Amino acid sequence: MDIEARRKADPEHWKLASAIRVLAMDAVQAANSGHPGMPMGMADVATVLFRNHLKFDAAAPNWFDRDRFVLSAGHGSMLIYALLHLTGYQQMTLEQIKNFRQLGSITAGHPEYGHVEGVETTTGPLGQGIATSVGFAIAEEAMRAEFGADLCDHRTWVVAGDGCLMEGISQEAIALAGMQELGRLIVLWDNNNITIDGRVSISDKTDQLARFAASGWRVLECDGHDAADIDRALTEAGKDVGKPTLISCKTIIGFGAPNKADSNKVHGSPLGDDEIEASRAAIGWTHPAFVIPDDISSEWQKIGEKGDALREQWQDRVDALPAEERDEFARRISGEVNPHLAPTIAALKEQAIGTMPKIATRKASENTLEVLNPVMPENFGGSADLTGSNNTYTKDLGVFSPADRKGRYLNYGIREHGMAAAMNGIWLHGGFRPYGGTFMCFTDYARGAMRLSALMGLPVIYVMTHDSIGLGEDGPTHQPVEHLAISRATPNTLLLRPCDQVETAEAWDIALSQSGRPSILALSRQNLPALRDQESTENLSAKGAYILREASAAPRVVLMATGSEVEIAVAARETLEAEGTPTRVVSVPSMELFREQTADYRAEVLPGGTTRIAIEAAVRQPWDWLLMGERGREEASDFVGMTGFGASAPAPALYKEFGITAEEAVAKAKALL
Amino acid sequence: MDIEARRKADPEHWKLASAIRVLAMDAVQAANSGHPGMPMGMADVATVLFRNHLKFDAAAPNWFDRDRFVLSAGHGSMLIYALLHLTGYQQMTLEQIKNFRQLGSITAGHPEYGHVEGVETTTGPLGQGIATSVGFAIAEEAMRAEFGADLCDHRTWVVAGDGCLMEGISQEAIALAGMQELGRLIVLWDNNNITIDGRVSISDKTDQLARFAASGWRVLECDGHDAADIDRALTEAGKDVGKPTLISCKTIIGFGAPNKADSNKVHGSPLGDDEIEASRAAIGWTHPAFVIPDDISSEWQKIGEKGDALREQWQDRVDALPAEERDEFARRISGEVNPHLAPTIAALKEQAIGTMPKIATRKASENTLEVLNPVMPENFGGSADLTGSNNTYTKDLGVFSPADRKGRYLNYGIREHGMAAAMNGIWLHGGFRPYGGTFMCFTDYARGAMRLSALMGLPVIYVMTHDSIGLGEDGPTHQPVEHLAISRATPNTLLLRPCDQVETAEAWDIALSQSGRPSILALSRQNLPALRDQESTENLSAKGAYILREASAAPRVVLMATGSEVEIAVAARETLEAEGTPTRVVSVPSMELFREQTADYRAEVLPGGTTRIAIEAAVRQPWDWLLMGERGREEASDFVGMTGFGASAPAPALYKEFGITAEEAVAKAKALL
Repeated sequence: MDIEARRKADPEHWKLASAIRVLAMDAVQAANSGHPGMPMGMADVATVLFRNHLKFDAAAPNWFDRDRFVLSAGHGSMLIYALLHLTGYQQMTLEQIKNFRQLGSITAGHPEYGHVEGVETTTGPLGQGIATSVGFAIAEEAMRAEFGADLCDHRTWVVAGDGCLMEGISQEAIALAGMQELGRLIVLWDNNNITIDGRVSISDKTDQLARFAASGWRVLECDGHDAADIDRALTEAGKDVGKPTLISCKTIIGFGAPNKADSNKVHGSPLGDDEIEASRAAIGWTHPAFVIPDDISSEWQKIGEKGDALREQWQDRVDALPAEERDEFARRISGEVNPHLAPTIAALKEQAIGTMPKIATRKASENTLEVLNPVMPENFGGSADLTGSNNTYTKDLGVFSPADRKGRYLNYGIREHGMAAAMNGIWLHGGFRPYGGTFMCFTDYARGAMRLSALMGLPVIYVMTHDSIGLGEDGPTHQPVEHLAISRATPNTLLLRPCDQVETAEAWDIALSQSGRPSILALSRQNLPALRDQESTENLSAKGAYILREASAAPRVVLMATGSEVEIAVAARETLEAEGTPTRVVSVPSMELFREQTADYRAEVLPGGTTRIAIEAAVRQPWDWLLMGERGREEASDFVGMTGFGASAPAPALYKEFGITAEEAVAKAKALL
Repeated sequence: MDIEARRKADPEHWKLASAIRVLAMDAVQAANSGHPGMPMGMADVATVLFRNHLKFDAAAPNWFDRDRFVLSAGHGSMLIYALLHLTGYQQMTLEQIKNFRQLGSITAGHPEYGHVEGVETTTGPLGQGIATSVGFAIAEEAMRAEFGADLCDHRTWVVAGDGCLMEGISQEAIALAGMQELGRLIVLWDNNNITIDGRVSISDKTDQLARFAASGWRVLECDGHDAADIDRALTEAGKDVGKPTLISCKTIIGFGAPNKADSNKVHGSPLGDDEIEASRAAIGWTHPAFVIPDDISSEWQKIGEKGDALREQWQDRVDALPAEERDEFARRISGEVNPHLAPTIAALKEQAIGTMPKIATRKASENTLEVLNPVMPENFGGSADLTGSNNTYTKDLGVFSPADRKGRYLNYGIREHGMAAAMNGIWLHGGFRPYGGTFMCFTDYARGAMRLSALMGLPVIYVMTHDSIGLGEDGPTHQPVEHLAISRATPNTLLLRPCDQVETAEAWDIALSQSGRPSILALSRQNLPALRDQESTENLSAKGAYILREASAAPRVVLMATGSEVEIAVAARETLEAEGTPTRVVSVPSMELFREQTADYRAEVLPGGTTRIAIEAAVRQPWDWLLMGERGREEASDFVGMTGFGASAPAPALYKEFGITAEEAVAKAKALL
């Protein structure tokens, strides 16, 4: 069917969809950069979705029980900006649309969570939206199970393109969603057969319907430019049959642009004035740039208002709850820090100082979770198939599954990237505080989603065990060397590397108190001695670095270390002190937190005029800023750590082999004195 | 069928397979760590493969036309170590088996490329083996097309577990292999239904056969403990029908261990003395630990020798070639640096200094490839669906596809991780020097395989364009900030960030001359002025850092910068010089190479007693070591760069917004003078 026939078939729909198309092409043209093809191609599907299916209230963008709409194909950002503007989201003014992709506007090149209400998650790196949506759908199931369908009863709709489906993370997401029978997750595949480089057929011939079906999805198809057919498919998809749903929406990229549609020319560049004029003629749009006539505008506004009544009914149900239940529900969806956290950590620290356990920090982490999880129903744990190694499961949690939606532990499978993205979604949905485990080295596999945790400022928690050559025999493929540097180089990311039970409890306290950034807990496989032997109600780790062992007099040497290497620093101090050199040990559980302290505090902990030795079984790069310090000469500092990849051998042999020992620290300090 | 029946069904096979089982359980027990379950479960499949199908000659492990055997499920490393030992690979002595997972042995916890002949690629991080194998199979097709089946005619056999198939990278690999109709790629899926955390059913219910078929694979099944059935399936799989093949080998993990088989207890821990004794009884093995009786040993040795005749025939065919063709073939499979490289680069540099083009370094890279690719037939390019942005295609290459195996450019699709792993495989196979492009920010997606490039020491080349906020409007999801730091923190990785056409040509010269490490070329989206205006036959970039603009007198300020920020340094120098401050500009295309220079050279470039300002549109972490230097006081250095994520706006607006300007550099320098 050609454009003309489409237009006549359903003129009311056509006008609504046309408004999206012209806003997209005009905004991209004004910005002189952007992606017009996708919004033009998916305008019909989006119109039917927002008009007839999506539960939302533009006047209350953060209404908890709204359907979530995720634009996984984030480059088509003008689609969502147009929708938000047309349906009346207050922040999305026409001025913002006109300032698409300009400094300070909320209409960024790709949709950015936190910039504007109505953008549920940041997308753009392909596949992230679909994988994050799995987290939304998991959280919805879990909240519904806990609080009932009166309070939580909504769907997650995702628009994904071929790029999203080619990225590996999509398979992790698809398989996880299928396994978990997420019947309220619906993916609208913009099946336009075009990628940046040309037709999909130059790089892929996967039968996507068969692929999704293989992982337990219901698969549907529709003509993505036929409003009635789209409506039929969305209606079907809206029925929860205990399977996630993929709808192949057969579309034409850049639909409406007579010369550039159905080609990669319309994917990532402005159409140009001539083609825009031709498009206006083709779709029958006579209004100038950025002008939406009143009749169309008011029809769209009505769509934005239609959820109002549903929202009020929901609010009535919330208000009718017993006070205690209502307060707990409000606390949960607010993401506030749990009041039980602090006293539980305090009690655990006191107990640990009494018993001084010699345990791996991964075990210390488990001990912490064992006391926290029973009093923090928002904690939602999991592991990428390393539960017994990450020590992430605690006995009260129960396993989340189709059979038990009240379980608070998820077997994510061998899917680190999918896990990280799902955790982002679980937090974004509201109701839970997710944590998930894998080996520290496999942050490599999850980087794409971990970066988005940081960019969006989500306080999800990564439990990364086996955090150095200390894991031993598994060898260099499993031994992180550069990963502490990577975490520390990533903006807005908190890396916590505790040295014993007390610091591990403090690390969890810090991580579970965050509201605007993710935490990475780097934990040892191997046992470590208890080093914190003084009771302190204060969370010393929260200062980032602190004096763990003071020198016997004004320090001549300051030894800095983190995690499993703090014990080496303490041993080196004993030797140096025995030889008459006053030596201080500074534990540095978090460089980021130390950086946030006052210059006075930092100078107090790391005084000038001393010899500084840093010890960490990893590369030196992040330590240089602490080694330069206020000292007078370059030679007055040195580093004990790794300069290359590790090896396969028992941990003690490796520490010796790579010279990460108290003897080496002592020798380096003495060489400088 | 129980063990006893299996044993009687084919006693000859049983004995051969039993040798693998006992070596695996004994070695893991001796090491007191490791994974016995997988080698015991796949012993039958491996025996049939090596005995009847795999083309190899244990006496000539590097014979070019051997079949490649890849253990993607690398934790089962004792499977391959046992096979190499039994078939007579010289390096794999019994002593090495006994020293499994010990320091200095070649029998690392996971198979490490370069430690021992017969290990084709490092595996362990799940999914990497299968994705790397796609590269092997691509290279095989391409070499066969170029040199003929007389010289290149072999298969790639992969053993993969459930973990490999759950990782997202596997989907990228599967879809790419299906698209490319790699008929000589055969994946043997160890379908044992067990992962570390328990049964596969707790985390996955994907129908793997349907999933592979959806991407164009032939799918077969066999009973993984029935030698005849295995042989039937492998025979079928060996026929090249223009589709890659998956064989679901139904196995029992830990087969032979009467109490622990078919459970996760046998996955990653030693069996223990009691279970080993019980297993010996069950499989009918009466010999002590590490003793293989002569009859079994000699049967295995014969298997190791059976490829000898084939290899000799192949050698005869090679020897019979015309000298020129033989030499070229030898050069190609040796990986030697092409003699045309240096003169071609020299000519290009001379031309660039003549024309001083103002272009993006991604365009400069294309210019370089345009002259190199015609004279370097080993160059094998590609991009993860960003060809027009990465500027990686040159007109002479042709596109590799099922229809044209002589094409030297691959449309990898939106599969950064799969591309990186495939490039590893292409290099490892021999014959080609692969390069591939994506946006610098999406190194995040490829990290897992990029780390293996570094760990294995493979000189593959990553063409990473859009390397800073300079990409502009696409915004923070696409703007690398921490990625230069990540690359520099990774051991054995060369990061090259050239500032203009001359440095870009030099960067390619360096990258294409490497033999033992990967290179990452960080290239600008935006145009940059030509800055190198002096002819130099020497590759100045190869020193890592060098004086680009000398000060008018003894320098009081040294400005350091890389890539797109060198122009800012040059502008800042002009201001400072105009104000009477002698200022030097040091271009730093590679910190790694600068670190390798003599201390004298480094001090010559960065003299003590000067004020140092580093300028880079990225985080500061990697710069601290150059900022500390030999100077006398902390305040005498500063950094102009990023402290957080970027934003969506035109590039010039962003540079101004984030204060990465000549004015800021001048102000910071003056504040310190």
